[in-house]
Amino acid sequence: MDGGCPFNLIMMTQRKSIGIVIFPEFQLLDVAGPLELFGASDGVQPLLIAARRDPVSPVLWQHHTITPEFDFTSAPHLDVLFVPGGPGIRHAIACSETRAFLRERSQKATYITSVCTGALVLGAAGLLVGYRAATHWLYMPLLEMCGAIPVDGRVVKDRNRITSGGVTAGIDFGLHLIAALTNQREAEKAQLRLQYAPAPPFQSGEPHKASDTVALELRNEASQRFREREQLLANILAER
Amino acid sequence: MDGGCPFNLIMMTQRKSIGIVIFPEFQLLDVAGPLELFGASDGVQPLLIAARRDPVSPVLWQHHTITPEFDFTSAPHLDVLFVPGGPGIRHAIACSETRAFLRERSQKATYITSVCTGALVLGAAGLLVGYRAATHWLYMPLLEMCGAIPVDGRVVKDRNRITSGGVTAGIDFGLHLIAALTNQREAEKAQLRLQYAPAPPFQSGEPHKASDTVALELRNEASQRFREREQLLANILAER
Repeated sequence: MDGGCPFNLIMMTQRKSIGIVIFPEFQLLDVAGPLELFGASDGVQPLLIAARRDPVSPVLWQHHTITPEFDFTSAPHLDVLFVPGGPGIRHAIACSETRAFLRERSQKATYITSVCTGALVLGAAGLLVGYRAATHWLYMPLLEMCGAIPVDGRVVKDRNRITSGGVTAGIDFGLHLIAALTNQREAEKAQLRLQYAPAPPFQSGEPHKASDTVALELRNEASQRFREREQLLANILAER
Repeated sequence: MDGGCPFNLIMMTQRKSIGIVIFPEFQLLDVAGPLELFGASDGVQPLLIAARRDPVSPVLWQHHTITPEFDFTSAPHLDVLFVPGGPGIRHAIACSETRAFLRERSQKATYITSVCTGALVLGAAGLLVGYRAATHWLYMPLLEMCGAIPVDGRVVKDRNRITSGGVTAGIDFGLHLIAALTNQREAEKAQLRLQYAPAPPFQSGEPHKASDTVALELRNEASQRFREREQLLANILAER
């Protein structure tokens, strides 16, 4: 090798960039699950991006802050767009800059992805029309408003859209994405690093498996938020 | 009700307090997994505690910071002690204040717990002698140095010690802990809120399930860190 790139530089340039779009009151685990998987893989490079470079906090945990590495203007080329969910999607859905950023960057991205209610942000940006998609079980009906075809799957891939179920689905999503961007062996290595051999003590993670009263209680709790999101999406989608 | 407690105050006082001991270079998902589950349950109150109240960052993610809510002196009564893992356990193991805090508070705690290599911090504090325990698969042999009985389990409960496997085991651990502190229904509700119905696309999360070359590669990568931790534990345990 004469005058070649230093090895690290080669590695860096070969890494696929994953732009994680954050906003106030995002759901911590929607980001932390995939992020930790991405950190356990040498083949991908996660980048934290927001409308402004001010520190943002996830919902519930004000003592956490994440300072975005890039704003929408300074963000480099992104191989993947990734949008997490959480109560803060109301900010992201209502923000015309966020929707414009997602639309613009989606033109050159290899994959356009979400975890949990991040799918509704993609939907508000018009990026799920005609695509099969998933979101948190409580908000599946809202996907149809966005022109998507709701699919009851943990990780749903349709052409270059990869959307997933609620919160913890982000870990399964992360494995799918690493395999799609690099190869299965790379994903398996990340899985073993994080010892991801889940063994939930109860089988209550989907509404049809949980007891009826638990599912009903959560539906009732979420009913106001459901209506608020429905109204917000209706307003935004009517603008188009 | 005359002169009674406001409802919120009653809720607060009934909530079981979980003291999460953090340190620089903790593993993000070791904390974020259980923390998000605790946040999805009304029955528990997680509190972030460190030797000092300065912001700390998890390993790999310097743009994240968590500002501890309490230092070792100001922390209130803790029903549960919880120690995460990560490269930063070398700071926690070497820190006599951390070990003293864990020993002192363990006297009155209902449960003494860990995820991933947090078990080695408990072990360094002398809290696992004679207990069955788990840790990240790469570091299981180090449990014996601490007088523990290594058990190949995802979540291992022995009397009031609850230790668990690597990183992602924290979510399974969190469910076990919520059920133990409150009741199974409360844990099931948190599980459904976070849609925890895991579906990993590959079965590489344990060394005996992963391909031999993947497991060997990670063992080789970790060999220096293994020796460093072994030496550090030997030094600390020799002081006793």
